[in-house]
Order: sequence, then C-alpha cells, then structure tokens
Amino acid sequence: MKKSLLAVALLGACAGAAHAQTSVQVYGNLDTGIVKRSSENISIGKRTANTLGIRGTEDLGNGFKALFHLEMRYEPDTGSSEIGPGGNQRQLFQGQSRLGLQGDFGMLRIGRGLTPFHETIGNFEPFHAIPTAGGFYTDLSVAGYNSQPLDPVGSSGNRWSNAIWYNSPVVNGFQLNTAIATEENNGGVAVIGRGSAGAPQYPAGAEASANPFSVSATYSKGPAALMAAYERNAIESKVWSVGASVQATPELKLMGTFTRLDEDHTRVFNNETSSWVLGANYVLGPGKFLAGYGQKDTDGLEKVRQLSLGYEYSLSKRTYLYIDASRKKGLLTSPGSVNQYDIGINHSF
Amino acid sequence: MKKSLLAVALLGACAGAAHAQTSVQVYGNLDTGIVKRSSENISIGKRTANTLGIRGTEDLGNGFKALFHLEMRYEPDTGSSEIGPGGNQRQLFQGQSRLGLQGDFGMLRIGRGLTPFHETIGNFEPFHAIPTAGGFYTDLSVAGYNSQPLDPVGSSGNRWSNAIWYNSPVVNGFQLNTAIATEENNGGVAVIGRGSAGAPQYPAGAEASANPFSVSATYSKGPAALMAAYERNAIESKVWSVGASVQATPELKLMGTFTRLDEDHTRVFNNETSSWVLGANYVLGPGKFLAGYGQKDTDGLEKVRQLSLGYEYSLSKRTYLYIDASRKKGLLTSPGSVNQYDIGINHSF
Amino acid sequence: MKKSLLAVALLGACAGAAHAQTSVQVYGNLDTGIVKRSSENISIGKRTANTLGIRGTEDLGNGFKALFHLEMRYEPDTGSSEIGPGGNQRQLFQGQSRLGLQGDFGMLRIGRGLTPFHETIGNFEPFHAIPTAGGFYTDLSVAGYNSQPLDPVGSSGNRWSNAIWYNSPVVNGFQLNTAIATEENNGGVAVIGRGSAGAPQYPAGAEASANPFSVSATYSKGPAALMAAYERNAIESKVWSVGASVQATPELKLMGTFTRLDEDHTRVFNNETSSWVLGANYVLGPGKFLAGYGQKDTDGLEKVRQLSLGYEYSLSKRTYLYIDASRKKGLLTSPGSVNQYDIGINHSF
Repeated sequence: MKKSLLAVALLGACAGAAHAQTSVQVYGNLDTGIVKRSSENISIGKRTANTLGIRGTEDLGNGFKALFHLEMRYEPDTGSSEIGPGGNQRQLFQGQSRLGLQGDFGMLRIGRGLTPFHETIGNFEPFHAIPTAGGFYTDLSVAGYNSQPLDPVGSSGNRWSNAIWYNSPVVNGFQLNTAIATEENNGGVAVIGRGSAGAPQYPAGAEASANPFSVSATYSKGPAALMAAYERNAIESKVWSVGASVQATPELKLMGTFTRLDEDHTRVFNNETSSWVLGANYVLGPGKFLAGYGQKDTDGLEKVRQLSLGYEYSLSKRTYLYIDASRKKGLLTSPGSVNQYDIGINHSF
Repeated sequence: MKKSLLAVALLGACAGAAHAQTSVQVYGNLDTGIVKRSSENISIGKRTANTLGIRGTEDLGNGFKALFHLEMRYEPDTGSSEIGPGGNQRQLFQGQSRLGLQGDFGMLRIGRGLTPFHETIGNFEPFHAIPTAGGFYTDLSVAGYNSQPLDPVGSSGNRWSNAIWYNSPVVNGFQLNTAIATEENNGGVAVIGRGSAGAPQYPAGAEASANPFSVSATYSKGPAALMAAYERNAIESKVWSVGASVQATPELKLMGTFTRLDEDHTRVFNNETSSWVLGANYVLGPGKFLAGYGQKDTDGLEKVRQLSLGYEYSLSKRTYLYIDASRKKGLLTSPGSVNQYDIGINHSF
Repeated sequence: MKKSLLAVALLGACAGAAHAQTSVQVYGNLDTGIVKRSSENISIGKRTANTLGIRGTEDLGNGFKALFHLEMRYEPDTGSSEIGPGGNQRQLFQGQSRLGLQGDFGMLRIGRGLTPFHETIGNFEPFHAIPTAGGFYTDLSVAGYNSQPLDPVGSSGNRWSNAIWYNSPVVNGFQLNTAIATEENNGGVAVIGRGSAGAPQYPAGAEASANPFSVSATYSKGPAALMAAYERNAIESKVWSVGASVQATPELKLMGTFTRLDEDHTRVFNNETSSWVLGANYVLGPGKFLAGYGQKDTDGLEKVRQLSLGYEYSLSKRTYLYIDASRKKGLLTSPGSVNQYDIGINHSF
C-alpha cells in the first residue's frame, strides 16, 4: 500500500465514463527524536524531513492522467514551517507544488520540486536520502553542489521553483528524467563569485545567466541499478555523477556514487570538487542496518570524511524507531570534526 | 458534481436525527503555465488563483445549516503562500475564512472574504474573473477600485477582513448581497490622500473613517442576467457598477459591465474614473473561446484600453488547457503598453 | 462522537493483520463573533482558538498504538495564522505537533504542545479554557505565569517546543502527566531579570538555565475531581496549583483553583503572586450558563479582580451561539479596568 493512506478514492459524478475516476489523498509523515552533537546540548530534532501533503490523479481516458502534488514541510519540534540554515522560514509548500499530465509519452509537470539530479542520486545513498547530518545526501553525495544559488539564504539546495519536468516512460529498464528552469531570480542575495563585494558577479536580484537544466538516466536489470546525471545551475556551476546499486542477497544491498563538481564559472580557487560514497543496507527481521562511508575532496582544501551507522526497527509498515551515530571530519570550521547521535521515531500516513 | 471531490459526506453520531448530517470537503485547484510579457523573460506563472481549502456544512434541522470555508491561496511556481504586488506574502487563508448560518432567511456569515461588489461583478467578466493580466477583473471591470486601502501593501484589493455578510434567498430570480466591515485597521501603511507626507489623511495604523459596506443585487430570468452594485471602502472611495449578460445561443454568451469610481474623498485630481468591459464566451465542442475589450477612463489621465483573447480546451470536467493573448495600452509607466501571452493547465479537485 | 468528523477510518494494506488498522482525521473549529471592549470600537474577533488539524492513530498490535497531532491555529477574522500579543505571527502548527506511542505503560510523545500544568488546570476553569479575555485561563487561573519566557514575543505562554511528554494510564481514577523540555532557546528576546539592560540575566538567544519541566496529577471519583500541578520554566520561575470540581447536580458543576507563582529567580520585587478562581456551569435545556470570579494578588501591586458571565446555546452537538460579559479591574495600565462583551458562533468539525 505504501503511503496511500487517508486514501479517499472517489468516483466522479459521471461515474459511467471511464475518465471520471479520481483519487485525492492526504499524506505525510512525522519524524522526531533526540539529537546530540559534539559540543552542543541535547536537542529535540528530526532525522528526515517532515511532510504534510495532498496529491491526486485524475484518469482522463486513453491512458492519460492529470496529476498533482502539494507538499508542506515543517519542523516537528516547534511546529513551524521548515526552517533552513540561517533561520529562514521556507515557503509553505517547500516539498513540492507540481501539476502535470502523464501518459504513454511519459510525464510532464510544471511548478516546483526536486531536480532530476537530486531525485536520482538520493536513491543511491545508503541512508535513503535523509537530509540531516547522519546521512550523506545533502553534502557528500552531491559534492557540496547547490541547485539553488540564487534562491533565498536557507533554501534546501536541491529544488527548483519555476521549472518544467519531463520523465520518460521506463523502456527496457531505462528511464530519462529532465528538468529546465526559467532564468527568474527567486529572491536570493548577491553571489560575489569572480566579482567583488562592490560589483558581485551576480548582484542581489540577478537573473540566472543561463537556464538551469538537469538530466538523469537510470537503468535497472534484475538486482542491479545504474545511474548517471548532469546538472547546471543558475550561476553555471556544473555537476555530474554516476552511481550503482546491487541487491547482493535478499537481505543485503550495496551502493555507491561518484560525483564531480565544477565551479569554475564563479570561483578562481577551490573550484573543482569530487566525492564518493559507499554504503550498505542489511535487513534482519524487523530491523535494518544502514552504513556508509564517503569523502569529499575540493582542490586546495582539506578532505572531508564521513562515517555513518544507523539502525531502523519497524513497529509496523508505517512506523519505525531509529538510532544513528556519525562522524564527519575535515570541516572548515573549528573544531574540524563533529560527532552526531540521534534516536527517534518516524511515522508516515 | 462541480467541485465536491474528496467529498467525504459523513453521518454524525446521532445518525437517527435529521440534523446530524455533515459534509466536510477538501477542495482546491492548481493552475500553472508559461507566461511571456513584453520586455520580460519567459516565466513560469499562473493564470488564475491557486487554492487549497476545506469547507463544510452541517444540517441543523428545520432548514437551517451551519457552514464554513477556509481557503489557502498559493503560488504554484514556487510553492509559497500567495504573494501580492510588492512581494508581500499574504495571510494563510487569503482566499476566505468565514463561518455562518443559512436558512429560509438567507445566509449570514462572519469573517473574511470577497466583497459582494467584487463577487458579483466577477460573474459578468468574460474571463471568469481570473485575477491575472489576461483578464479584466482586477482592474478594468472595477475601474481600478481597491476594497482594501488600509490593508497591508500587496493585499488583493477585493476582500474584507473583519466583516459580516448577508445574502438574501433568491426570490423570483432576484437576490441581494450585502456586507459591512468594522473600522479596524488591518496593518496598512499611511494613505497620504488630501494630506501631506508629514500629515497623511490616513496615518499608518489609522482606522477607517466610516464602516466599509458593499451591496449588490442580481436578477436572472431565462437566458438573461442583470446586476447592480455599490460599495464604499475604509477611506470613503465609492464605486457603483451595472452589468448584464445573455446566453444568446446555447454556445454563445455575451456580457458587459459599466463601472464608476469616485475618489473625491482622498484625491484632488484624477478622482473620477469610469470603465466598461464587453465580452463573449463561445463553446465549440470541448473548447471555449473567450474574448473581451474594455476601457478605463480617469479624468486627466490617458485612457487605458485592453483587448484579450483566450481559449480553453477541456481534458475532463476538472482539467483544461488554456492559451491567452492580451494587449493593454495607456499604462502610466513606460513603455505605456504591455502584451501578455500565456499557455498552461488548470486542474481542480 | 465528539470531534471525529471527516473521520476516514481506513484499513491498511495487510488488512488481515490486527495491527494494520489506521485512522487519520482532519478536524478543527471556527469561532468568530463581535467583540466590544471599553474604549475601543466594535471589532470582529474570536472567543476561543480557531484550529485546523490532522491527527491519526495506528494500531501496532499488543495494545500499542502510534499516534500524532498536527494542529494549525488561525485568526478567523483575517484568515492569518494565529497572531500573538505584539502582532507576531505564530508558527504554522501553533496548536501542537506531536508524535508518540501509547500502550499499557501510558503515552509517550515528542514535539510541541501544551504543558501538563496548563493542560490540566484548563479543565478546572469555568469557561472551558477559552484563551480570550472573557475567560480566566490565560491570566488569573495560572497567576500570570508564562511557560515560554525565552520564546519569541507573542508566544502563547502555555506550550513547549522541543519537549517530551509522558502521561501515565489512569489507575483507580488517578493519572500523572509530565513533560520535560530541552534547554534550547527558541528565538526569544533578552530577559533582563536581575541583570541590567546592558547585561541582561538572559541575553537574547540564551539557553534555559535549567530544563523546564512540568508535572500534574489528577484524581476523579464519581462526581468529584481533584488536581495538583507544579512547573518550572526556562528562567526558573516556579508555579504550583491545586484545583477541584464537583458535578453537584446533573445540571450544575462547581469548580475552583488556587495557584502560586514564585519569580524570585528573575525578580527582586513583585516576585510572589497568588490567585484563585471560583466558577460554575449550569445546563438548562440546550443552553449552558457559565460564571466565574477570581483574584490575582502580586506582592506590592494592586489586586486584579475579574468577574465573567457567559451563555452558550447549542444549535447541534457541533455548533453553538455564545454571549459573554466580563469585567476586569486592577490592570496596571490606565484606565485600570476593562469591560468586554462578545457575541458569536462556534462550529467544530
């Protein structure tokens, strides 16, 4: 069943017609627990994003569907809308707001959502793309790349507003995912880049110097899956990535990614970064072990190294407890390393 | 069926009693597409307001009902709450938040919502009251009148907070709609008016100088409908309007409005404005053509002229594609005219 | 039935298993009316908090449940998220956001919500804990105590973010309710306390000087109920309270509380406050009379006295009309007393 809860599948008025079938669902999840980071007091926090959304599909006949997603994100410990780094409150439907059509041709959507690069690489990360420090998704997996450099400070770094998505159908295990964004500035501050504080390369309110675009391809056959992705953002940083996963045994899944980031367009120094992450998931009864190790190497800077271990214990298909420990070294800020521990509960509906 | 989707009609606990019937519905729509305005880059935007709401009615017996609406508005291209001109984010339930009673006497509601003047005139506008530049609703139809001059910058201009509504029942095709607002200031900046920058006629935080009120009457008989409306806002601007529509053939509907605005209370010059809009809708199979032309004439200023053409193609009762072209001349800002084109998709649930 | 409307009780995928039962509900209420306070114009306002929430429980088997609440609060007269004193807009899920487990052991929850002290004393207040001036709940019942001194200005004063709750099962009529919060600062301004403006006792952004905690016990037997509670906040103010209620006849309920607040940790003067409130509810057909009188006495300050009278008339189990009159004397601000009258309607769903 996955997440189709509060699934209110309703028949439309003209229920005799094949195209009248409609499904609208309220869905979401809460994830909260206790977090301890080195040199900080214990806090109540989260391990993955907390969501509340509504989504629907309408059967238009002839294999066509209209579909939409509206997804709020929030902080479970304070009840506020999701807060980004710097304390900025994000938009109401931070998760996504997309509307589109699906058919034999694939899926075409307009609005706001994860870029194909970010959406794809998240499936090859051993902590199922949790955005908090225990996982690798938001930093090491993507080599520190930010999809949203001209968005407000505190943006999530992996989404586009004002974009169009096209996903191909899956043909012989192969799928292509693309998105292109307009050049609209979304309210970000200046990016100094190769300019100066007085004459930044991208002043506050500047539009993109080229349309951001993202493309990813996935291929799966039997227990194996491969990915490759390329993306360019509004300030012409470029990132590419390859990844693979294999379900080695029914219990064990192995995975890895390699990513390279080119920030030559806005940086004189430290403009080449490469990263890799290797990980494993091992299922044992109602429990699952997660483990990963990765490095991020920016030319001229100290290497960043991260080791993360986690365990999830399912109370049901929709509720699990978790505990994690991770260590990250090579941070530019003092003291240069941080340990993080968390323990908590996740419930989806 | 209209919009009664995700229609969760539930029987109350004391289901034996006639007054226990309750219906609560989640409803909304997404509308997004590509917009091109003269001298601007292509952007992702909307054609009509995007909503997510919850509404309910409770049968109280003896023909009485309790009823409510809570309606969020948002920007589909960024996922934020609705943003007004000037970049201000509007309140969570920008659309409306009203609670009231309905019975043989009519309907009485308290809270926030469209004024009767705005609600009525929207039904006589050829682009079904879309608030964006392709339509006539927010500017030409209402002769530039603003219902909310003491509300925050970027308010929608057609709603009242802190008001009471009364709608009569429909008797022989005739209905009366009224609202009166308190004098509460809702957080607006100063209105200089006939004062000076140092001593504005309405300082920031000033209360209304008289209770805003709005009244409209509609009459429909067979294929014809008529309207007349009058409204006075918090700074005593006065607007009146008459309109008519006729379903000339099953396919063709014609409509028009004439509106006159008096801003004498706050302006020495340019204080009389009149406007008219003529339009037509023509249905052809699953498609509908929309066309309109209008003028707005403020004494002492250049006339504003607008021509708009649109086409909507229904994929189902709840999903349509649209394309519009419009031209507006006589704007006070350079270059004095703007062309707008949009193409997109609308889905309601 | 209480509030289980829009109650979409759904069976999970593995419907054969006992632990697959799930219930997710959208719930809420609107309360709005006309308010008149001495020396102010008539306004549209509310009498109790307005909510829109989603809550769910999942049966995990063996008597265990997962459960959550997400609750928005809003202003019905303007449609905005709830606004606190000082005009600050509160967080999206101001009401609560909590996730937890329930079983024979009791209930354990993490997130944000009312403190046990506040939640318990509200049940012994004659105006069922309405937060507006007609009732005693937010000021006199709690002796002016604020649970959230390090939260942003305008916080509701009775909730904790970043906390863990434990409620015991009810054993022989006895129940224990506890919560402890982390020392995290939630964005409040400085508390000068025993410091000075230049060196406040709690600077802006300061963490709590001790973990806030709250404990309450309730005992009910037949028509009688007793309570006792103790709480310490982030700046080490301490409050304790006792209360009792008795259903004297089927129509008449009497109740009272006594509360004592010690602010010695942050105040040199005026640091001891005690208060008491006595009240009654009387049911007569579809109507209910509410009455209460209370005093709050801070050493060195004038006594605060309040008398409130109210009447609620039920149109159904979920809709009622209300009218109140209250008088409060001994306010520190001129003119020293305020009368408040309100009349309105409340609907829950």
